[in-house]
Amino acid sequence: MQSVQTSMPEHGIWQTIREEASQASLDEAMLASFYHASILNHESFEAAISFHLANKLDSQAVPAMLIRQVFAEVMRSDPNIAVAMLADMSAYKDRDPACDKFTTPFLYFKGFHALQSHRIAHHLWKDKRRSLALFLQNQISQIFGVDIHPGARIGQGIMIDHATGVVVGETAVIGNNVSMLHSVTLGGSGCESGDRHPKIGDGVLIAAGSKILGNIQVGDGAKVGAGSVVLESVAAHTTVAGVPAKVVGRPRHLQPALNMDHNLGESEA
Amino acid sequence: MQSVQTSMPEHGIWQTIREEASQASLDEAMLASFYHASILNHESFEAAISFHLANKLDSQAVPAMLIRQVFAEVMRSDPNIAVAMLADMSAYKDRDPACDKFTTPFLYFKGFHALQSHRIAHHLWKDKRRSLALFLQNQISQIFGVDIHPGARIGQGIMIDHATGVVVGETAVIGNNVSMLHSVTLGGSGCESGDRHPKIGDGVLIAAGSKILGNIQVGDGAKVGAGSVVLESVAAHTTVAGVPAKVVGRPRHLQPALNMDHNLGESEA
Amino acid sequence: MQSVQTSMPEHGIWQTIREEASQASLDEAMLASFYHASILNHESFEAAISFHLANKLDSQAVPAMLIRQVFAEVMRSDPNIAVAMLADMSAYKDRDPACDKFTTPFLYFKGFHALQSHRIAHHLWKDKRRSLALFLQNQISQIFGVDIHPGARIGQGIMIDHATGVVVGETAVIGNNVSMLHSVTLGGSGCESGDRHPKIGDGVLIAAGSKILGNIQVGDGAKVGAGSVVLESVAAHTTVAGVPAKVVGRPRHLQPALNMDHNLGESEA
Amino acid sequence: MQSVQTSMPEHGIWQTIREEASQASLDEAMLASFYHASILNHESFEAAISFHLANKLDSQAVPAMLIRQVFAEVMRSDPNIAVAMLADMSAYKDRDPACDKFTTPFLYFKGFHALQSHRIAHHLWKDKRRSLALFLQNQISQIFGVDIHPGARIGQGIMIDHATGVVVGETAVIGNNVSMLHSVTLGGSGCESGDRHPKIGDGVLIAAGSKILGNIQVGDGAKVGAGSVVLESVAAHTTVAGVPAKVVGRPRHLQPALNMDHNLGESEA
Amino acid sequence: MQSVQTSMPEHGIWQTIREEASQASLDEAMLASFYHASILNHESFEAAISFHLANKLDSQAVPAMLIRQVFAEVMRSDPNIAVAMLADMSAYKDRDPACDKFTTPFLYFKGFHALQSHRIAHHLWKDKRRSLALFLQNQISQIFGVDIHPGARIGQGIMIDHATGVVVGETAVIGNNVSMLHSVTLGGSGCESGDRHPKIGDGVLIAAGSKILGNIQVGDGAKVGAGSVVLESVAAHTTVAGVPAKVVGRPRHLQPALNMDHNLGESEA
Amino acid sequence: MQSVQTSMPEHGIWQTIREEASQASLDEAMLASFYHASILNHESFEAAISFHLANKLDSQAVPAMLIRQVFAEVMRSDPNIAVAMLADMSAYKDRDPACDKFTTPFLYFKGFHALQSHRIAHHLWKDKRRSLALFLQNQISQIFGVDIHPGARIGQGIMIDHATGVVVGETAVIGNNVSMLHSVTLGGSGCESGDRHPKIGDGVLIAAGSKILGNIQVGDGAKVGAGSVVLESVAAHTTVAGVPAKVVGRPRHLQPALNMDHNLGESEA
Repeated sequence: MQSVQTSMPEHGIWQTIREEASQASLDEAMLASFYHASILNHESFEAAISFHLANKLDSQAVPAMLIRQVFAEVMRSDPNIAVAMLADMSAYKDRDPACDKFTTPFLYFKGFHALQSHRIAHHLWKDKRRSLALFLQNQISQIFGVDIHPGARIGQGIMIDHATGVVVGETAVIGNNVSMLHSVTLGGSGCESGDRHPKIGDGVLIAAGSKILGNIQVGDGAKVGAGSVVLESVAAHTTVAGVPAKVVGRPRHLQPALNMDHNLGESEA
Repeated sequence: MQSVQTSMPEHGIWQTIREEASQASLDEAMLASFYHASILNHESFEAAISFHLANKLDSQAVPAMLIRQVFAEVMRSDPNIAVAMLADMSAYKDRDPACDKFTTPFLYFKGFHALQSHRIAHHLWKDKRRSLALFLQNQISQIFGVDIHPGARIGQGIMIDHATGVVVGETAVIGNNVSMLHSVTLGGSGCESGDRHPKIGDGVLIAAGSKILGNIQVGDGAKVGAGSVVLESVAAHTTVAGVPAKVVGRPRHLQPALNMDHNLGESEA
Repeated sequence: MQSVQTSMPEHGIWQTIREEASQASLDEAMLASFYHASILNHESFEAAISFHLANKLDSQAVPAMLIRQVFAEVMRSDPNIAVAMLADMSAYKDRDPACDKFTTPFLYFKGFHALQSHRIAHHLWKDKRRSLALFLQNQISQIFGVDIHPGARIGQGIMIDHATGVVVGETAVIGNNVSMLHSVTLGGSGCESGDRHPKIGDGVLIAAGSKILGNIQVGDGAKVGAGSVVLESVAAHTTVAGVPAKVVGRPRHLQPALNMDHNLGESEA
Repeated sequence: MQSVQTSMPEHGIWQTIREEASQASLDEAMLASFYHASILNHESFEAAISFHLANKLDSQAVPAMLIRQVFAEVMRSDPNIAVAMLADMSAYKDRDPACDKFTTPFLYFKGFHALQSHRIAHHLWKDKRRSLALFLQNQISQIFGVDIHPGARIGQGIMIDHATGVVVGETAVIGNNVSMLHSVTLGGSGCESGDRHPKIGDGVLIAAGSKILGNIQVGDGAKVGAGSVVLESVAAHTTVAGVPAKVVGRPRHLQPALNMDHNLGESEA
Repeated sequence: MQSVQTSMPEHGIWQTIREEASQASLDEAMLASFYHASILNHESFEAAISFHLANKLDSQAVPAMLIRQVFAEVMRSDPNIAVAMLADMSAYKDRDPACDKFTTPFLYFKGFHALQSHRIAHHLWKDKRRSLALFLQNQISQIFGVDIHPGARIGQGIMIDHATGVVVGETAVIGNNVSMLHSVTLGGSGCESGDRHPKIGDGVLIAAGSKILGNIQVGDGAKVGAGSVVLESVAAHTTVAGVPAKVVGRPRHLQPALNMDHNLGESEA
Repeated sequence: MQSVQTSMPEHGIWQTIREEASQASLDEAMLASFYHASILNHESFEAAISFHLANKLDSQAVPAMLIRQVFAEVMRSDPNIAVAMLADMSAYKDRDPACDKFTTPFLYFKGFHALQSHRIAHHLWKDKRRSLALFLQNQISQIFGVDIHPGARIGQGIMIDHATGVVVGETAVIGNNVSMLHSVTLGGSGCESGDRHPKIGDGVLIAAGSKILGNIQVGDGAKVGAGSVVLESVAAHTTVAGVPAKVVGRPRHLQPALNMDHNLGESEA
């Protein structure tokens, strides 16, 4: 996979988050302690994000403080998780015109929260702590409305916008720099176990409500139009749309996920 | 925009809500204090709705009592918000055959709760309290599964039925007397900021799962069929359907939102 | 309707659930008391499921302990509800390749939780406790993202997979052994009351995002492709797909719900 | 021990509680569902008291619903516990001039709540579930400010008035028809284990703040003045007072606990 | 009764509280929103104190938002309650060497919280809302460890220091400018109803652990030594101490409550 | 001060706590996750105690996760705090016949919880974070019924048994190996600020309900009888009792706190 592109070096993002939070806590007194507790109070991005996600995932069965401990331990044992989280945060800032701060996805976007919680659940799944991974999947689905099987493998620089109703199956694989919107499904077909979910390349844009079903390939730089039902593999740098989806053109951009142009391919070169 | 039509004068709705709640609290002892706390205990509609929504939006970061204070202040400073809320409540009662009481949307319909909470967030957004508006947007999205950007401008007499998965973008505009169902998207296209979301006229009916994308117009009295993907403007009093959506007829009713007939245009005059 | 098929006699399921929970509580200490409190602590399936669902539906207005009492009383007065719940649990285990234990749907699948909570709400609805039934519908919709009107009649052996965004209307009827996925709508049309929602036969598979609208029939063993919009009745053992949906073939399996093959009918005999 | 005296047959108390609650729920709408949930919703005294105490003892570690189950099971296996609870409730109504209803101690008096919770903890202690008994002791002490070791044996018809600061040690024994006030201590002396706490006879009145220390006897019908420190056994039907306590007279009443006369013995016959 | 003396005009206290909170919210970021939510966010002392007490008294049965409404209404209908609360706050600041800010009792002292909550409960009691008054008494006793019967009449400028274990009976009367410490009891004697509790004059100091029992008078400016048991009336400007209490001298100060000198009378003029 | 004496080397206590918790989690399934979350899940005593106390002190204003962070940071910056906590835990096990496990005070004794929380608050007080220290004092007082001013200096090997109603003033000093019971007051006198509270030597036993008032000395190895009011300094190795307290003998043991013999001095050599 190609390397993840972000608009600023990773080591500067945490500092920027803190500056944004400092300013915001002055602007809105009602949220001052929220900014403090969630961001300013922490020495590192890892400490802050584990605190914030744990608060979101709090439940009677496994309270926030315990979840936080698990999240912090997993992030310590696999530093790539924090790298991926930072890349995802940059993806929102770079691609979502309604998002001009890192703190917005960090604090407020449930697609971001669901994805980062999945990264922890995935680590636990690989670590054979399957009950706990399933527990987290359920909490993520119930709280954020995003159902990602803990077995799914997901790259970096991912934006899941709006996010309600997203479903990603156990054997799905998602590359780097992918953008997907709410109600996107990467689903299986049939009741046999085994490899049965889509493989999404780098830079792919999957528009709202699209269903991609079965162990098929969606090539690098492809675009899937809104509301499409994709039942066959999609070549790289190709736009598909419709129910069932057919090729309708080629994306103007090599990585359509990055510019989020939802126009279909007809008018493209 | 044309004026909002409701089946009874606004000043009588609050009285009717109270009568419904009185009766219900006698019928179902388990909910008696709930009816009391949410409705009967209050002197005005404004007091009651701010109490009920605050309870729904309660969180560790900003507890119910504080949210309620904000909501009450906003409603005091802009009396049109309460007028819009009453018109929305009437919309449910008039158009939803499963809803024969004002208390049903007031107490139970998350589409109603999300929309009214958005009305407050929108006021805060215009008032430059953007952090608090974003905070509320996130709470509304997480709790009700409805993601309306606080910048979106929405008329009166609106019904959002079932509501899960609805997404409305920052520069979207929705007229009066609009009905939309769950999974409807009024989305943008591209990663440039600026005016990039749909403009929906009065009396429009947008059926379940439809995606309307980009800065396009959907004219007064238009109808969008279920599961459609609308990428181009729709003329007034026109029915479109399909992926991508095409004109399929004309609605029988001048304001299809009011009679909720989901049949497509083929058989219409 | 034909009888419900499960892979093991009902009386053995509760015992298997307990064994699974015993093992899991040894494997994952963090969840040991959760398994204990939700399963091992109870003498019967009825006691356990009412406890677990009540915990999920807990709210300020009607706390868990009170909900549990209602659920337990309803299950005592109608033993068929527990039978249906067990059949549903078997459906997940038999049909979902990502589900190899009974405890997985029991503890973790919100589609299962929503459906079982609906079974109680439906009983209350028939019993004329309509306020309480509507209260539960709202809680189910807010917490699980699944909006089933308490009037809807639903058979046994039902799997609602992933479940976010499912909507089932008041006069809908669903047969036995039906599988449906997230974002499926069984909706009405028009604002007249009366019988206005779909009737789904036995063994039907309804793929993700499909909207079936109006008082139409979907015959036994039919299959509805992902993202379809179905506006007309579907004959038994027929596959439909598209927006609007058209006949595209015949399912290979007599009850496509059981093998979950999402391929459309083109290649079928 | 002599038999417990109450002002009405036990089987009528539950009916009276229900009538009081019915009336009160009409008088105070804000508490209507509280009266319903705590009393009117239940078929038996046992169901109601286990519900109410569990609500009071709710915690993250062991939530109300689980506590309730334990309490209900213990009360089923030992019907004498309910008998003792009813006798205690009568004691408050008969002896406390500020208490003219059974519902007052049932719903509101923390001395009553602490004592009844202890009765369950004591049963668990005898049943060798010592961890759970200690857990409950701590919850009772933290929530009600009453620290009764689960090993202590306590009779029926007991009133613990106001209750803050009461301490009763492991080997203490309390007879029937005893009244004690807040800040009373039945404590031990020395760090040796074994029988080391006071034995209180029937009908004894122990006034506020008295400390009775060591394995000593306080005979039937004795009275201990407020603020006394009792280090030696007290003969039956004797009044003691002071620091250290000395005999100051004889109670006018055979069972001073029943008339709650706090005057010291000087003027008595 | 003589008029209440405070160290600053009442109308300036609220302004001072706000300034203290402003400063503190800068000094301790972790508490910034707490200071904001509890104090800075409110337009008046009445709004702030009703918010803060309601938060403290929150329960499943009657949640904070509802309690707050009751408190606000009572304070509106009887402005003397706020006057008394301000005088009490001044009492702490003037008399407690560990208290140099108004915000300290306002936010942190449970004796202050209990007393102000009692003032509301007392108003409800007089208003014949006895169930709600008893409910509040129980909440106050359980949460703050202070048991004041809602019938008790209490003046202004009262300091209840430390407060755990304080008990005040139904017919007790407390004058102005009284100081009392933890574990003080103003109790009754006997099980007859009617006027049966102490009457405490102005400026009285009642030291820790003292029990004053029966319908007796404690005259203006009297002092009761720590751990005393007072069974007979005490003349004005007299110091009593011991078990039972005897006259031991005269307080040096006309109102010993104001200088909190706990030395007994021996060395006084 | 003399060195603290415990029955086992400090480094072995944490291991023993874990073994006790392991065994208990097998014996009582209902508490298995509680033992896991509170003890077994942690790598060090510091991690476990900060987790457990934070859970106890949880509030809306400052939630558990935040409190825990503060506690962990304070314990890292001052390792003596953990040493003192371990010595206190040993004190309970050595001196309280009802306590034969380290886990009992650790998990269940509110005197232990209050004291350890005070140790953190004291550190914050010295560190000039006075608002936060006062906040904690109030939480400790409200939740555990123990009011220790954060300025008070307290040694190691301290047992506060039962604990309800204990009050310790700002300038109080408590040595090592002290035992005190519930309702003990170390109070001030007068409203002047400055050094005004008692100084307690090593090995002192202060029995239930005793009030020690003013800037006086209680010498090493002294014993204060239950219910005493001490207004003058007490010589080392002396027993005082009564209201007011007088010398009544000499304790048999050099450090009466260690054997907890509450008999007064009459029979001692």
